[in-house]
Amino acid sequence: MAVIVQKYGGTSVANPDRIKAVAKRAVEVRKAGYDTVVVVSAMGDTTDRLKKLAFQITDSPSEREMDVLTSTGEQVSVALLAMAIHSLGYEAISFTGAQVGIVTDSAHTRAKIVKIEPVRIKSELSLGRIAIVAGFQGITHDAQITTLGRGASDLTAIALGAAFKAEVVEIYTDVDGVYTADPRVVRDARKLPVITYDEMLEMASLGAQVMHGRAVEYAKRFDVPVHVRSSFSRGTGTLIREEAKSMEKVVVRGVTANKNQAKVTLHGVPDRPGIAARIFKRIAGEDINIDMIVQSVGDGGKSDISFTVVGDDLKRALAVVEKVSTEIGAEGVNSDDKVAKVSVVGLGMRSHSGIAARMFAALAEESINIGMISTSEIKISCVVESKLADKAVRALHSRFGLGKQMRARRKRKEKK
Amino acid sequence: MAVIVQKYGGTSVANPDRIKAVAKRAVEVRKAGYDTVVVVSAMGDTTDRLKKLAFQITDSPSEREMDVLTSTGEQVSVALLAMAIHSLGYEAISFTGAQVGIVTDSAHTRAKIVKIEPVRIKSELSLGRIAIVAGFQGITHDAQITTLGRGASDLTAIALGAAFKAEVVEIYTDVDGVYTADPRVVRDARKLPVITYDEMLEMASLGAQVMHGRAVEYAKRFDVPVHVRSSFSRGTGTLIREEAKSMEKVVVRGVTANKNQAKVTLHGVPDRPGIAARIFKRIAGEDINIDMIVQSVGDGGKSDISFTVVGDDLKRALAVVEKVSTEIGAEGVNSDDKVAKVSVVGLGMRSHSGIAARMFAALAEESINIGMISTSEIKISCVVESKLADKAVRALHSRFGLGKQMRARRKRKEKK
Repeated sequence: MAVIVQKYGGTSVANPDRIKAVAKRAVEVRKAGYDTVVVVSAMGDTTDRLKKLAFQITDSPSEREMDVLTSTGEQVSVALLAMAIHSLGYEAISFTGAQVGIVTDSAHTRAKIVKIEPVRIKSELSLGRIAIVAGFQGITHDAQITTLGRGASDLTAIALGAAFKAEVVEIYTDVDGVYTADPRVVRDARKLPVITYDEMLEMASLGAQVMHGRAVEYAKRFDVPVHVRSSFSRGTGTLIREEAKSMEKVVVRGVTANKNQAKVTLHGVPDRPGIAARIFKRIAGEDINIDMIVQSVGDGGKSDISFTVVGDDLKRALAVVEKVSTEIGAEGVNSDDKVAKVSVVGLGMRSHSGIAARMFAALAEESINIGMISTSEIKISCVVESKLADKAVRALHSRFGLGKQMRARRKRKEKK
Repeated sequence: MAVIVQKYGGTSVANPDRIKAVAKRAVEVRKAGYDTVVVVSAMGDTTDRLKKLAFQITDSPSEREMDVLTSTGEQVSVALLAMAIHSLGYEAISFTGAQVGIVTDSAHTRAKIVKIEPVRIKSELSLGRIAIVAGFQGITHDAQITTLGRGASDLTAIALGAAFKAEVVEIYTDVDGVYTADPRVVRDARKLPVITYDEMLEMASLGAQVMHGRAVEYAKRFDVPVHVRSSFSRGTGTLIREEAKSMEKVVVRGVTANKNQAKVTLHGVPDRPGIAARIFKRIAGEDINIDMIVQSVGDGGKSDISFTVVGDDLKRALAVVEKVSTEIGAEGVNSDDKVAKVSVVGLGMRSHSGIAARMFAALAEESINIGMISTSEIKISCVVESKLADKAVRALHSRFGLGKQMRARRKRKEKK
């Protein structure tokens, strides 16, 4: 029988009434004749509450014990959801990550799935039962409880989707799909009916907080179709899938802004081979993720090196960079935490040129200065002043004709 | 190395500060050179809170899922306690019931321990680590999570004590030991330095809520010395152990009262063989525990049968008994929920006669009427009016010379 995997996030199971609503949706899928696997997160703010308890005990909780602690959150959810499904007259059985055979490596609090042993779920599904699986957690070969890291219930769902070759993995969340831009910023933003894995990956990493990036990667790798939709409404959401010929030929799929950014610049860096490597190795050693990097060679064999980090990491990044700056004889360091990264994303860029030029022009028309630029095959990002980020997003959204109105106008034109 | 098992109840780990205090006590034992195993219950009212959630979902939650749900409570406690011990600079590792190999039968919510596989704890202890074990839970042969029933963290501790041949199992609770009577009722009540398993069993089942009865039985069976003591003070508590020659030769060890009792009487029961069996089989079929039973044969081949049940079960018991009464042609049923059971307990009764007579005399002197009487080798119980229970306890406590004053007087006498 075809399998459908559903995943419900913390807000979708935040209280008994919502859990009952989730039970109804799961039963609907079962009634429609699918083998049904449901992955749930911890209720509401449970995980944060548990972490807070840990930090009341100690400033540096053991990661092994943190996993033992936080994995209880999902265990509560699966038991309650199973009970809720029973009360609707359907059979259901809950599984912890350990019971279901989600085997991970031993990197506590950020473990990677090594394999899934689907035997147990399969036998329950064959009995007509709905299988309810605790998201976010797994178990090592020597029976240690692990968690997959923040937001990784998505990953659990995709991994199960891959293991069962699911027809679709439905990711239920508090938004009803992926938009061309943040609807709170761009009134005219349009829900995308479909988006490719690569585009979604760029959107996810750029701050469209719909789905966990690692989960999208996993879905792409195993070609698992994903449907992002709202648990509070019935409408169709956004389908994430491989590129297909039938897909609408758009150049730019969406515009995103990520405001939690900071820029660090090393001035007057001696222009010797290996200097950049030395700088970034040290930063990586502190587990700080670097995003964009720009090097500008100036006069006299000196260059400026700028990079961006997540705003929360700025303090730690500066501490390292200031040390390195002295060691390599750079002229100085400065930073700016009032920057944002604005990006346009779209598979069509691969075959269309001139997108960057159009992007820069649109920003220039609004007198928005561009601090740094980086590009990938399907994305162009510009660093701008934080306070201008929303303005930039609106300008780009309009320039690339992503809104409902523009689309309608274009369609009318095509008909003529 | 000698092993000490400590068990801390819910109030002892109710918040982060108390967990830190528990950590200190565990570390003290480790420092003293013992292999240390610590069993903990869920924090404060966690178990009740989780059960309440379940009943918000459904009136009849599945027992399997109830176990998945409630077992999370102890899992939270073990993780937090491990962190707290780490922060004191000692090594500790937490275990769920599943991880530690507490194998049970599959009677969810009231499972029985089948065996304990101590290999994993042993190897951690041999590394100098403090092993922290979730009380109350186990796992079946096919990896289902089970719980051992209310208050069964005591049982986990005793079972581990038996598995490791522990020097002692320390049961930390919110009272500082077992008393000759409830100190809230009898001002002169004295803490017992030592008590036998059998006496403790009678005391436990009679309402001295210090330790779970099943745990005492288990301790007796495997001859595990138990030390009941307070987690909020440093004093010695009460040692529960096998009878020893060196033990103080007392006839009566303590007096208890259990006020949550009700009495049911069937009047005019035809005096035919098998009638009593029929009545009590039906009641047992409803999972109602009968305590005392008295049958009085009257005139004309009719008898009255009275029995006591826990007050909470009265309604259910009456429903059954009224049906049975009609079926067997009894004359009628009445009940009284304003009764209490007052008992004197002591190993010395085995060899001393006249204890019952002294008990009845003491009650008579206070004009306390005795409704029913039952005796065992080491216990005599009388049913009295609820409102007279405290008075009865004080009278008996004094009559058998259990108080501090009496004892002091006796000792002075002996010296002369």
